[in-house]
This record gives sequence, C-alpha cells and structure tokens, in this order.
Amino acid sequence: MKIAILGYGTIGSGVFEIFESNAANIKKKAGDGIDVKYVLDLRDFPGEAVEKRLVHDFRVIAEDPEIACVVETMGGVEPAYSFVKELLLRGKSVCTSNKELVAKHGAELLEIARQKKENFFFEASVGGAIPVIRPINESFAADEIEEICGIVNGTTNYILTKMFEDGEDFATALAEAQEKGYAERNPAADVEGHDACRKIAILASLACGAHVNYEKIYTEGITKLTTVDLGYARKLGKSIKLIAQMRREGEAVFATVSPMLVGNDSPLFAVNGVFNGILVKGRYSGQIMFYGRGAGKLPTAAAVAADVVECARNVGKNEPVFWSGKEQQLADRMEEVNEFFVRVSVADEDRVREAFDKITEVSPAEGEFAFTVRNVSERDFIEKMKGIRIINRIRILNV
Amino acid sequence: MKIAILGYGTIGSGVFEIFESNAANIKKKAGDGIDVKYVLDLRDFPGEAVEKRLVHDFRVIAEDPEIACVVETMGGVEPAYSFVKELLLRGKSVCTSNKELVAKHGAELLEIARQKKENFFFEASVGGAIPVIRPINESFAADEIEEICGIVNGTTNYILTKMFEDGEDFATALAEAQEKGYAERNPAADVEGHDACRKIAILASLACGAHVNYEKIYTEGITKLTTVDLGYARKLGKSIKLIAQMRREGEAVFATVSPMLVGNDSPLFAVNGVFNGILVKGRYSGQIMFYGRGAGKLPTAAAVAADVVECARNVGKNEPVFWSGKEQQLADRMEEVNEFFVRVSVADEDRVREAFDKITEVSPAEGEFAFTVRNVSERDFIEKMKGIRIINRIRILNV
Repeated sequence: MKIAILGYGTIGSGVFEIFESNAANIKKKAGDGIDVKYVLDLRDFPGEAVEKRLVHDFRVIAEDPEIACVVETMGGVEPAYSFVKELLLRGKSVCTSNKELVAKHGAELLEIARQKKENFFFEASVGGAIPVIRPINESFAADEIEEICGIVNGTTNYILTKMFEDGEDFATALAEAQEKGYAERNPAADVEGHDACRKIAILASLACGAHVNYEKIYTEGITKLTTVDLGYARKLGKSIKLIAQMRREGEAVFATVSPMLVGNDSPLFAVNGVFNGILVKGRYSGQIMFYGRGAGKLPTAAAVAADVVECARNVGKNEPVFWSGKEQQLADRMEEVNEFFVRVSVADEDRVREAFDKITEVSPAEGEFAFTVRNVSERDFIEKMKGIRIINRIRILNV
Repeated sequence: MKIAILGYGTIGSGVFEIFESNAANIKKKAGDGIDVKYVLDLRDFPGEAVEKRLVHDFRVIAEDPEIACVVETMGGVEPAYSFVKELLLRGKSVCTSNKELVAKHGAELLEIARQKKENFFFEASVGGAIPVIRPINESFAADEIEEICGIVNGTTNYILTKMFEDGEDFATALAEAQEKGYAERNPAADVEGHDACRKIAILASLACGAHVNYEKIYTEGITKLTTVDLGYARKLGKSIKLIAQMRREGEAVFATVSPMLVGNDSPLFAVNGVFNGILVKGRYSGQIMFYGRGAGKLPTAAAVAADVVECARNVGKNEPVFWSGKEQQLADRMEEVNEFFVRVSVADEDRVREAFDKITEVSPAEGEFAFTVRNVSERDFIEKMKGIRIINRIRILNV
C-alpha cells in the first residue's frame, strides 16, 4: 500500500520514522508492505531520508490513484479540512492526529468515509499513544457509556504536578514547562482548557453517537489556581487536575472542562506529569482507565501508524464509527450538581453558614474561611453565594 | 444474527442479560439485531427468561445453520475445546472468556478461524472488562511490544491489598476473599499463580506473534508472603503485587509470574482490591496502562458481548490476530537479571556482605538482617546465597 503524509512536523516526521524503522514488523501486521510515497511540506530537508519523498503540491498526492491512504499531521482546521475532505471524496482513507479538525468536522468526514467505503481514523487525536477512541468504539460496543472523565492535556498536568509536588506557583511551573518543550510559547490553548475541550468533545461525540459541539462545552482553565489552592488540596488528601468530563444523568448529557480536586483513592490521582489518564465508565463494564503518554513525537506517531495498518487491513471496507451529524443537546450546566471546595474571607463565615444547610469546614489559610459543600447545583451555588466574595472555588471529583 | 451461548453460569448469564437489556443499542452498533437463539446448559431454569432458549444437547447448536456466532462461557479445556473447534470448522465464529482454552489451544483455534474466514475472539479471557487483547493486536500494530507487566488476578490482588492496608495475615485475607465470593473454595489456581500464568501466556503469545507455552512459565504464588513481608514493603514505600510479566531483552523473551515489590511511583502501585492493571510498553508508544475490573459477571460479559458485536460487523471476514502455532522459545530464567529484597537471620549478615559487592541495608525486623541487591541474575543469586538460610526473598519491580 502506498501512503502519503501531509506535514513533516513533529508527528509527521515521527510517522515517517516508524514506517522506515519498523517496516518488516508492520508488513507482517498489515498483510502488505506500507510505503511512504510522498511527504507534503513547504520546506525542503536536504540530505535527510525524507528528501526524495517530499512534494510541495497537495495536488500530486490528491491526484495519484496509487495513494490509498493519507496521514494528516498538519494540525489546525484549514487547509487540513479541505485536503482531508477532498482525499476522502476521491476514495482515499485518512488517518489524523488533528483534534481541531476532528472536533469540528468529525461527523461530516466520517459520513463521507462511510459513503466511499473508506476509513477516517483519528486515534491519535486524543491521548496520544493511549488507545481510547477504538476501545470506546469497539470494546464498549455492547455497553452504554455513562461517564468519561479524563486528564487529557499533558501540559496542564505537568504544571499542576509541579505546583502540587514542588510547591511552585503557576508562572514558574509554566515557564519550566515551556523550557522543556511541554508548553507552547503562547500557552493559551492548553492552560485555558481549549485543547482539553476539543478532546472531550470528540470522546463525548463517540459516547453519544451524536455530534457534541465543543463550543458549547463549559470550559475553565488552570490560570487562577495558586499555591494556596494546592496547599488546601494536600491538606484534603487530594490533588488538583484539569478534568475533562462527560456524564449522563438519565437523558441529560453534561460536558465540562474544569480544574477539580481529585482524591487519592481515584485512579486519576496518580496520573502525573505529562501523562494522560482517561476513565470511561460503562453501565456493565464499570470503570476502565486508559493511561499513558498523551503527547510526544513517537507515541503519537505510533497511534497514527496503527491507524494506517488498520486501513491496510480494511481496504474497501468502512469500519463503522458511531458519530452522526445530529447535534447532541447538552443539558443546562446550571442544573449540574457538584461538590464544591470554597475559600472566602474569614469575615464571611456567618453568611456562608446562613446560606447552606450543611457544610464541612476545612482547616483554613490565614484570614480565610474554607469549606466543602455537597450536592449543590451550579445555579444554587451562585444563588447562595450571592454577595459573598469568593477567593476561589474548585469542584470536587467523586470518581 | 442468531447466536448461542454455551454455559449459563456467571458469565454466560451475564452475556444473556446484556443482549436482553441492551438490545436496541447493540443493534445500532452491530448493524443488525443480535438474537440469542439457544443457551446450552445441563440445568433447567424454570420460570426464568432464559427458559425457552435452553437446550441440553450441543448438537442442536452445532447443526443449526442459522447460528453464525457462539459464545463459549463454560470454562475449562474440555469439552470447551472440542465444541469450539467443531463450531469453527462448521464456519461459525466463537467468542470466549475461557483463559484455559485460549492459553492451551489459542493458536490452533485462530488458525481454523482464519481458514474458515470466521473469527475467534477472546477479549474477556484476560482482564475481564478491560480492553487489552484488541489494543495489543490493533493499537500496537505499528509498534513493537517490549514488555508487558500486569496485575491480572483479582483474587490475589484483593488478598494482598488486605494484607497491605489492614495488616491481615494471608489466611485471614483469603478467608475474607472466599466469604465475599472473590476466591474459590479451592483457591489454588489463584493463589499459586496458575491463573495469572495462563493470562500472561496469552498476552505474551500475542506480543510475540508465536505460541508461549504456559507450562514453561516460571510461576510463584503468594502463599509464602507474611505480614512481616508487607511490613517491610511499607517501610520501603512499596507494595507487594502478584506480577505477571513478559519482557524482551534483545532476542531473549522472559516470562514469569511472581510476587514483586512495586514502588509508589509505578502506575501499578495504586491498582488495589479486585482491580486489574496491565502495563504494556511499546518501543514507540512508551508505557500504556489498562485498568479496570478484571472479573465479575457483567464486566466480563460486556467484553464477551463486544466481541460478538465485532463478529456481526465482520461476517465472512477474518480479523487477523497474530499468534502462530510456532512455539516461542523462552530464555533460560536463570539468566534473568533482577533486583532482590532479601531477609536472612541477623547471624548471616557477614556472609551476605561477603557474598555481594554492594547491598543496600533495610531497617530490619527483630533478629533479622534485610537488604536489597541490584543487577543480579537468578543463577548468581542462588549461587551467592548458597549456605545462607533465606527467610524470604521478593523480587523488586522497576516499572
């Protein structure tokens, strides 16, 4: 099988490397040798192994009938979307690591693949090397997914781990992450939760079989967390993680991204540094967690390459993926019931006690009154805290 | 699609329950309704939903051309093996949760399935609800698996968790596990490591693409562990787990089952109670862990039912599973290099110091001398400890 790679960046060059260095093994698994015929990039790479496969014009790839499968690792919505759509319409399968593309256009691209009896695979778009898309689609095929709850962004998890373990403040931990190449120079997509938001939109769409619009997912980042918050977490025997969550309650589907306190009895507690952990709860299967490197050149590339092998095994046969174009309505998040940890000024203690029937006091930092309160909807929380200045409030995960 | 279930025990009745209670969802995922036409059991279940599907004669199922797929949940090698083989030869797919059957005859049954363009699936045979067989086969298709390291037996993990957390001795923890239904009245298969041995044989066969004979895997159970050992573990910041392991070193493949000390920085450390955790290390993917309920009626049944859905999606198409009948040679375990934790009498301290160049002392229990020693082969360890009475020695996991 002849394939092409769009984009010779970190992931694309990793995919190229794997097909070069593990060719014999892959041939056995795919039932056919997989040959990278073209790599699309604007740059030249003189002297490198990729040099002879480089093309600068997408049309060479699109119009070559020999190309059966294309890897898209350019990132971003355009031109990736136009390219991928054309390739699928021309009867080529596509494997991508591009979460922006999948979150926005996944349903449409899957539908085209279905019609053309080709495949559109995107295992690497969530959790890097961690198998999670295919397990949700296949291993939970006889189950109903009630909840997905994950640490899906390695950058923020690295920062939060540093803040938790070494007592660093947000700015220091971020700078360190940038220095190590774990965070971009413009870190907004990670630290504001946008990356996690796209990933949970993808997982929730697969769990619901309908399109979850990422723009409608309530998203809170980690920029407001301080060392004092992490200190409280330690006192409570918990850690703070950026949690991307989808849960069903009857017919209602809630989806949110926000920093949450995670207890040391949760399997997510020990997911540290750049690692990701994704907990999927099935009605029959119970809790299953998938854990591993959520990013990085070779781990992510290995997931893309496995998708290509799956394409080779299924030439002319569409593997069904359940994600229709119908929009999945999300429930009003004001109805979502949570447990909260709250910090207010010591002066507000009485007003807090008046507002809530039952709170649990937490040993406070100086000048503060701190408590947790259970079974409160977002709406009630806002209502009851009206007029009380909140220093910070963090939701508590009970998974 | 019409299916049959062989054996209406815990798992078989769970599979029946899932196909009854989740029919609409399953139909969507499978592309076809899945109808349980027969259930084979020696017993009658008067008044129960299953009553009308019950048959007592295997031939009814084998000879019904309408049956496209059969679930085998009888357990044990015979008559399961004869039944499954005949069904595959007759062109029916088979899904099983039977680890004894798969460990012993997996290669042969897969080969028949391949020839008949049917499928032989066994996701539930290892790790219950945890997807691990299919991820190894598909998600690591472009990778090379260097190591598998798992807690794959819930009974022993429950016992060890009780011993570690509550300071119970082995007999008390076992009795409690039996009372809760986590351990059989005859617990040998679990506590002597035989169950874990079959499971790692299955995983290792898939990782190597060749048959790993479970009878050749060195297997040590947990019956010799005492509260004193667990006390040492706590002091070392570690826990003790029954670890089923396969690892490659160059061309050599080692496979063992033994209790090991697991550090609190390992993702396996927090796998407690009846949960299972399986760590798979790929050359490109790095460490991936799969975690969840390794047993139980509905979790295991959900995995079997997902296999049935996969059969329905692949009628007349064999999904390749890489496990040939060629025997994978295991390396001489005397060559395996480990780190050991060792307890001897205080009287033997000098002899120990003489025997090893470098040991690390561990604060000892009364009358004992305790130490750890690195980079020692099994052969050297036995050699050097000749003439020294070992109170206990436990290998240390560095994963």
